[in-house]
Parts: sequence; structure tokens; C-alpha cells
Amino acid sequence: MSVIQIYDTTLRDGAQREGISFTAADKLVIAHKLDELGVMYIEGGWPGANPKDSEFFAMAREAKFQNATMVAFGSTRKHGVKCEDDTGLGALIKSGVKIVTLVGKCSARQVTQVLGVSLEDNLDMVASSVTFLCENGIGVFLDAEHFFDGWKDNRDYAMKVLKTATNAGCGCLVLCDTNGGTLPEEITAAVRDVKQSIGGVCIGIHAHNDAELAVANTLAAVREGATQVQGTINGFGERCGNANLCSVIPALKLKMDINCVSDEQLSKLTEVSRFVSETANLSPESFMPYVGLSAFSHKAGLHVSGMARWKGAYQHIDPDLVGNNQRVLVSEQSGRTNIIQRAKEIGVELTTKGPEVTALLEQVKELENRGFQYENAEASFDLLVYRMAPDYKKPFELVDYMVVVEKYRRIGAEQQRDGMLSEAMVKVKVGDKLLHTAAEGDGPVNALDNALRNGLLEFYSGLADVKLMDYKVRILEESTGTESQVRVLIESTDGVRQWRTVGSSANIIEASWLALADSLEYWLVTHINN
Amino acid sequence: MSVIQIYDTTLRDGAQREGISFTAADKLVIAHKLDELGVMYIEGGWPGANPKDSEFFAMAREAKFQNATMVAFGSTRKHGVKCEDDTGLGALIKSGVKIVTLVGKCSARQVTQVLGVSLEDNLDMVASSVTFLCENGIGVFLDAEHFFDGWKDNRDYAMKVLKTATNAGCGCLVLCDTNGGTLPEEITAAVRDVKQSIGGVCIGIHAHNDAELAVANTLAAVREGATQVQGTINGFGERCGNANLCSVIPALKLKMDINCVSDEQLSKLTEVSRFVSETANLSPESFMPYVGLSAFSHKAGLHVSGMARWKGAYQHIDPDLVGNNQRVLVSEQSGRTNIIQRAKEIGVELTTKGPEVTALLEQVKELENRGFQYENAEASFDLLVYRMAPDYKKPFELVDYMVVVEKYRRIGAEQQRDGMLSEAMVKVKVGDKLLHTAAEGDGPVNALDNALRNGLLEFYSGLADVKLMDYKVRILEESTGTESQVRVLIESTDGVRQWRTVGSSANIIEASWLALADSLEYWLVTHINN
Repeated sequence: MSVIQIYDTTLRDGAQREGISFTAADKLVIAHKLDELGVMYIEGGWPGANPKDSEFFAMAREAKFQNATMVAFGSTRKHGVKCEDDTGLGALIKSGVKIVTLVGKCSARQVTQVLGVSLEDNLDMVASSVTFLCENGIGVFLDAEHFFDGWKDNRDYAMKVLKTATNAGCGCLVLCDTNGGTLPEEITAAVRDVKQSIGGVCIGIHAHNDAELAVANTLAAVREGATQVQGTINGFGERCGNANLCSVIPALKLKMDINCVSDEQLSKLTEVSRFVSETANLSPESFMPYVGLSAFSHKAGLHVSGMARWKGAYQHIDPDLVGNNQRVLVSEQSGRTNIIQRAKEIGVELTTKGPEVTALLEQVKELENRGFQYENAEASFDLLVYRMAPDYKKPFELVDYMVVVEKYRRIGAEQQRDGMLSEAMVKVKVGDKLLHTAAEGDGPVNALDNALRNGLLEFYSGLADVKLMDYKVRILEESTGTESQVRVLIESTDGVRQWRTVGSSANIIEASWLALADSLEYWLVTHINN
Repeated sequence: MSVIQIYDTTLRDGAQREGISFTAADKLVIAHKLDELGVMYIEGGWPGANPKDSEFFAMAREAKFQNATMVAFGSTRKHGVKCEDDTGLGALIKSGVKIVTLVGKCSARQVTQVLGVSLEDNLDMVASSVTFLCENGIGVFLDAEHFFDGWKDNRDYAMKVLKTATNAGCGCLVLCDTNGGTLPEEITAAVRDVKQSIGGVCIGIHAHNDAELAVANTLAAVREGATQVQGTINGFGERCGNANLCSVIPALKLKMDINCVSDEQLSKLTEVSRFVSETANLSPESFMPYVGLSAFSHKAGLHVSGMARWKGAYQHIDPDLVGNNQRVLVSEQSGRTNIIQRAKEIGVELTTKGPEVTALLEQVKELENRGFQYENAEASFDLLVYRMAPDYKKPFELVDYMVVVEKYRRIGAEQQRDGMLSEAMVKVKVGDKLLHTAAEGDGPVNALDNALRNGLLEFYSGLADVKLMDYKVRILEESTGTESQVRVLIESTDGVRQWRTVGSSANIIEASWLALADSLEYWLVTHINN
């Protein structure tokens, strides 16, 4: 079938999602990830509209992409301003991109009532802006805003805007369901009409999910001949979001035989989805099709036994194809297998019926009841296994600690000075020796980390290489406010390896301490053993 | 247009969602809520399959519903067992319902490979089970499991199962996309085929969301003449969930002119959605179409100023129709219009070109650069507006605080005893009076909260009603470990209203303090003003 261009707008429209605020550096790492996924176009932002986006385009100019072309988003010139004097168009040229997506209004009512200009003037704004960019050596895609609503309301004007853009040199007419309320059958009829009325030009689709139909609307447009598909990773976007590329791409490739990305690229889909969520500082949504943690999860019973007979009995695709996994939700038996498997991977042989497995299973159950979670903290789980060995020697042992956080106000001769102080005192035993150390930090956890290291470095100089990379806090049982259980996940590195540990407590300091202590113990144990 | 039967399976298929565990009492309150929404059928569970469901049906028999009929779910008789001896069918009869939905396999491959019986035997199991229930005075709907996959693989057998059920007295053929991977055009073709092959019988649709197409597939089936629509509130269900009735119902009513519920019932949709989430003990999903908190939220300045000119400029429906609200978000990216709009909502008139707006915009930008975020913390933003007033008087002012967290180990006569202590001392001014109070807590933030309240209660006794509902911590710029910026979001309630505040600092204690202090100040200011 025809070639489909995947156009990602996570960095522009996706960033409109409530709660997302990407830095320019965030945008750059996401852009590289999108490139790996095999996306053809990456819309990086709206240069000039905010300083972050201008900063991003400056960084992107220096970056190298394998597959993707960087695109900037902008608007047609302002009413009553010449193109060469329009600051928006100027910023687009300055951004250094080769392709621009230019928003132009296609709904007659939007033009007169919202934009407040005449229908003729809007046509001229579209024509002159497209021409101006083309003359400056930039390819233009038209973001045909409110196209479907406009087409329903005043078809002839909507078509006139598309024709005007095409005549001015526009390379692709991206039909937008801006308010996200259009039904698939309306998409089908409108795309068919455009295809018949304006031949030979690339048609794109840009759908929003306000009626939970963005994926269906995107696929409907492709069926009618649209060849550019716009969307975002995880469906991020304003209000209810944009068409979710994590659902659109596998549908095109696996269900409609459209080779928009390679098999290998498709197998990175789950990783890309989670990477973008993490970078946006949002928990990955478990129930997302294809890429969610629960997408191929099966509760014990009829379905699980059915799948033992036929892998596809309750799965619409093989999860491997999108880099996801099947999960059978834990029964005691599957728990045993998992534990034995993991122990084997770290060189500890356990037998199925052995008492160690039962003891570990009990321990995991009890700790998970108290808020720990080992799925994302393999190093903490490995420590449970190591500690089962009768000859296991802890490299250090905590006696006690105290943390003080003070917000102070000193009133001097000239002015009042406010400040913060965080200090920790730690008592820890290495062998028979008792260490008592103290340190300051940027906050209570950092102070605790510094104090603990200060003490241990005397015995284990290699610990200087160990650094925290990531520190995450989750509040469990959300309804009880600051008295809730707190789970802390820490990711550490020694420059070569990375490992993750977990702590849980009603007290955030204690939860952090447990995860910190596990991280250092894990490195010491595996480093000394290796 | 034709009458459409809304069939809700939140209590059965919805309860299969990972993390949901309804009690029988939960199910009953939800059933009453569904009845208010105007649902025609409520599938209450699978009697006999688990004791909770049998308990629920016993309770439901005593309950009175205005609109809804209670339905039980079950399976055709076991292979080799007579209907009258089949415990499953017996439990269905015992449940006391007038209608049963009976799962029967329609895919030839599923019958032979997963069920492990011959194609003929399966037909006989369907026929005899339907007949048996009808003879016992129970109406039967067929849950035609794996119908669409079966139809694609072996159309004739799938049709044979439907005909067998119809001939045995089945009142509705519910076509199931059990694995959720079918495309809308396949649904259209299959439903059309059933309609042409088996005339005069009610056709239902039961879609799953594994390809993010459940709503579209449901609407496609209705277009082809399906008259029973099965789904769940919020799309709850196994794996990626079922067709979301919160999206299906408004699409039918508002976009396809199908009068499936009354206007008044439709206006309860948002309330029902949130009620079901709360009962399931899950945070309501903000980004859900129609009913989510963000469904009609506007962040982009361009959109907000557009909507000031035409309410429908960036909304596909009037949110009132489904009982939801429009929200204007204030953030770094938002323009002056958002700020003016939000200030107006709280009774403060600002002029577009006025210095207050510029000052507020600068303040928001600067604070968001330091990690604050106002779009989820309207109360903190409102305080910025209130504080602009020259006559604003802070109800209290912080001087300083100190927090101590100690992990201690006491070694007594018998055994070693470990414990945690969290204490806070707070100095705060109310008017001219300096208060110095202290309190313990479960953790440092809780101790701080307790100490602050202890002091303020003397002046503002009403504060006793104010409680924290939710406390969220986000680490920003994750790559720098425990030295990162911390953002704390707090949700509070006084039993009547709810409000959200934000704090940000490199120190988690200080970030929490800022959000806490804003929460109490907000309540005091708005309470005293009202």
C-alpha cells in the first residue's frame, strides 16, 4: 500500500496537555527517541511563541537525526501586517527548519467571529503567508484548523481555503478536527470530498480525542487516501488529547498492512511510550492499548487456562511485536516461578519446593502489603535473595539517624535574611566499628545521603563513583493526606551499571533512607562479589 | 430513530479491571446510580462464580429500580452435563433475575482448541442451555464470544451458532469483540452480514478497547442496526477496558440523535462517572472525553481568547449537557486573557492593559521557572490575585520553623526497640501576636501541619474543618537525584468545597510547607470574605 508519513506533534500539541511542561532539554531527548521510532516528521514547537521553543530549535539545529525531519509550527501572518514585517513568520524562518506547518482557519464562522477578519482577507493571509515561506525556501504544510466543522457548516469556503493554499505552493493539506467532535463517517465523507475536489495534493489528518474517536477518525481518513498522519505519543494533548500514535502506528502496520515503520522500530513502541511519560514526569498509563502495563495482562481463571492452550486466545496481537509483555497476574504458583527465575539470573539456584522460595514469597507479600514494590526495584529484590544465604555479611548496618530541617529568619542591621538549613547525623556500624557522621544537604534526603557516604567512604572508597540518577516519590492510599504511606524509588549508577531500589514508610525520610541504604548495600555486595 | 437499549456491565466485565475489587454493597450503590442515569439493563455479576456475586443478587432482589432491569451473566452448560444438573445454570435460576446473558463460543477455533469440544457439541450446548433457561421463564441474551474473530476465520460456523441460539429462543444476539482487535470497517461488514442472514432478531454489540477503537466499533454497529449497546462506566474492564458508556451515550444522543436517555439523565453523566471511580477507589481520569476534569479545560492563550468571542470555538459540545464544566487554565504558556478570565471568576476585575495583569503574568512565569505549577493549583493562583490588592491582609505570617526526624534504637533489658520520631516547631505571627507551637506527626510534613494548626486554631477555630485529602510529590529535573527541585501539590477540603495548592523548593519540607500554608490561607481568605 501507499507510503504513510508519520508526523509527531508530541513536542507542540502534546505539550498542551494539562500538567506537562517540557524543558528544551526534555524536548531534545524525546526528539531523538521519536527518531529511533522511525517517525518521519517531528514538530518541535512554535518558535517565537515562547522562549523555550526558540531555545529548542537552536539546539535541534546542531542535532543529528537518522529518519526524522524537524518541523516548526506557526500561524499565517497577522491581519494588516505584511509578511516580511510579521514577527511570527520571521521567527519561523529564523528557526532554521526546512518545513513549516502553518495554521490557517478553514471555518467561515471562525474566520469572521473569532479571528474577526473578512473571508476574503483570510484567504489572502493564507495565500501570502504560504507564498512568502516558499520563496524563502521552506516547504509548507497547511494545518487546516477547524476543517471538518467548517466543511459541515460552509463547505465551499472550507474548500476555497484548501485550494488557495494549494495554489500558493502548500505541500500537504492537513485536515484538522480541532474540537475533536467529528464522527468517523463524517471524516470519511469530507476526506472523500477533498480528494475528489482537489486532486494530486498530499492530504493529512490531525484528530483530537474529545469524542474518544481520534484513532478511528485517523484510520478512516487513511482509508480514504490521507497519507500524512499527525498524532502524539500516548495521545498527549490539550483537553482529552490528540490521536494516539501508540495506537495508530500498530493499527496501520499490523492490521492494515501499511509499512509506516520497520518491524524493529515497531518493537520499540512500548519503550518510547514509557520514556515520554517519564520525561513528562507522568506515571505511564497502565490501561493504554498496545503499550500499557495491563494491555496484555490476564487475571487468573478462564482466560489464563485458555491461553495455556492457545497463546492468541485472549490477545489480539503478539505483545512482542510492540515490545510489550504478557503478564499473568500473580497467583502463588506463578510467583514461585518468577522468584526462581530471577534468583537464577543472579546466580542463586533455588528449588521449586525448597523452603527458601516459600520464605522469599512470604517476605515479598508482606513487604508489598507495606507499600514496597519490587517490579521496578530489582536490586532491592536481589538483596532479599542474597540475605537468605546463611553466610551473608551486611557491608554496613544502621544504628540510628537524626535529620533536622530549619527555616530561619535572621534580622540584621540592613535587612531580613531568610534561609534553609538541612542537616543529618548518622550512626552506622561497619564490622565492629561504630561511625558517627554528619553532613548538610540541599534537603533532608540529600543531607542523609551525604552523611551516610561520608562515613562509609573511609571503608569503601569505591563508593565515590556511586551516584543517584533518579529519585521518585509516590504517595499510596491517596485519600488520607500527609499521613499516607510513602514509596520512594531510587535509581543509581556507578558510571557502568544502573540499578533501582525501593523504600516504603509512613515517613518520607525513612522511606528514602531505606531505598538509599539498599542502593549502597547493593553496589557493595555485587561489586565485592564480582 | 430506533430505540437503543443501554446495557451496562460495569459490575461484571468492568470489575475485571486490574486493581478493582467491588464489595456487594459497592455494587448496589453503583446499580442505583446507573438506574438514575437511565440505563436499561444492569449486568450485576456471575452468580455462582464467586460468593460476592451471589450475595449481590440476593441484595438486588430487594432493591427497587426505576428504569433498569437486573441481568445475570453465566455460561452455557458444561460439556457432558445435563442442563438440569449444571451448577452454573442452577445458580443463574437461583439468582432470581428475569434476564440472563449467556456466553457461548462463536469461533470454531476457540471451540475445538480452547474449549476442547467438537463443533457439533458446542452447538448443542448453546441450544440446550438457551432452551432450558427459557423454559424456566428467563429471557436469554447470547454473549456471542469471539464473534468477530470467528466470523473472519470461519464465517459459516459463527453464523450457525447465532442461528442455533435464535431458534432456541434467544432474545438478543450480542456480538462480542472479545479480544478487542477488530477494525470499524470489519464490524460494519460483519453486523451487516448478520442482519441480512438472520432477520428479525435484536442485535447487540460488546466491544473491547485493545485497539483504542471500542467506542468507534460500538457506533459502527449501531449504524448497521445493532440496538443493544454494551459497555461500562469509564470504560473499566479487563486489559485495556470495555467500550466506555460515558463516551458512547453522549455520542448516540448528541451526535446521532438517538434518544437513549433523557436530557436530565445525560446531565448526570459526569457525576455518575466520578461516583463510580470513587467507589472503585480510583482517581477519576482527568483526560476522559465528556466527563474528565480536563475535557473542557483550555490552556492555550489563543484558544481562550477565541472562546471569549464564541463559546463553541474550541468545544465540540456544551459541557453543561453532560454535567461537566469549562475550565480556564493559568500557566506560563497562557496569555493575559486566561489570567483576566480566571480573576473574573473569583470576582476580581482586571483590565487587559492594566499593570496588575502584567505583574501577575511575570510572577507566574518566574514562579513556574522555580517549579511551581498553577494549572493544577487554582487556589494558589487565586492567592496571587488576592495578594495584589493594596489592602490585602495575610491572615497569618510564617517567621520560621524547625523539623526533626529521628530514627532511634533503644537497647533495653529484653530486646532492641527501633522507632521513629517526627517533631516540628513553628513560629508564626497573627497580627502582632507571635505564636510558637510544636507538634509530633507520622512524618515531617504531618508534624509541620499539626504544629501550624495548633497555633492557628486559637484564632481561627473554623480551621478544624479543613482537612488534607491528597498530597502529591513530583521531583523535577529527574536526572540530578536527591538535589532536584521538588513540587508538592495538596488538595484540601472543608467538607463542602475542595481546593488545590502548590509549593516548590529544592527541599521537600519547604515545598510541602508552602503548599500547606497556601491551603490554610486560601480557606481563611475565602471563608472570611464569604
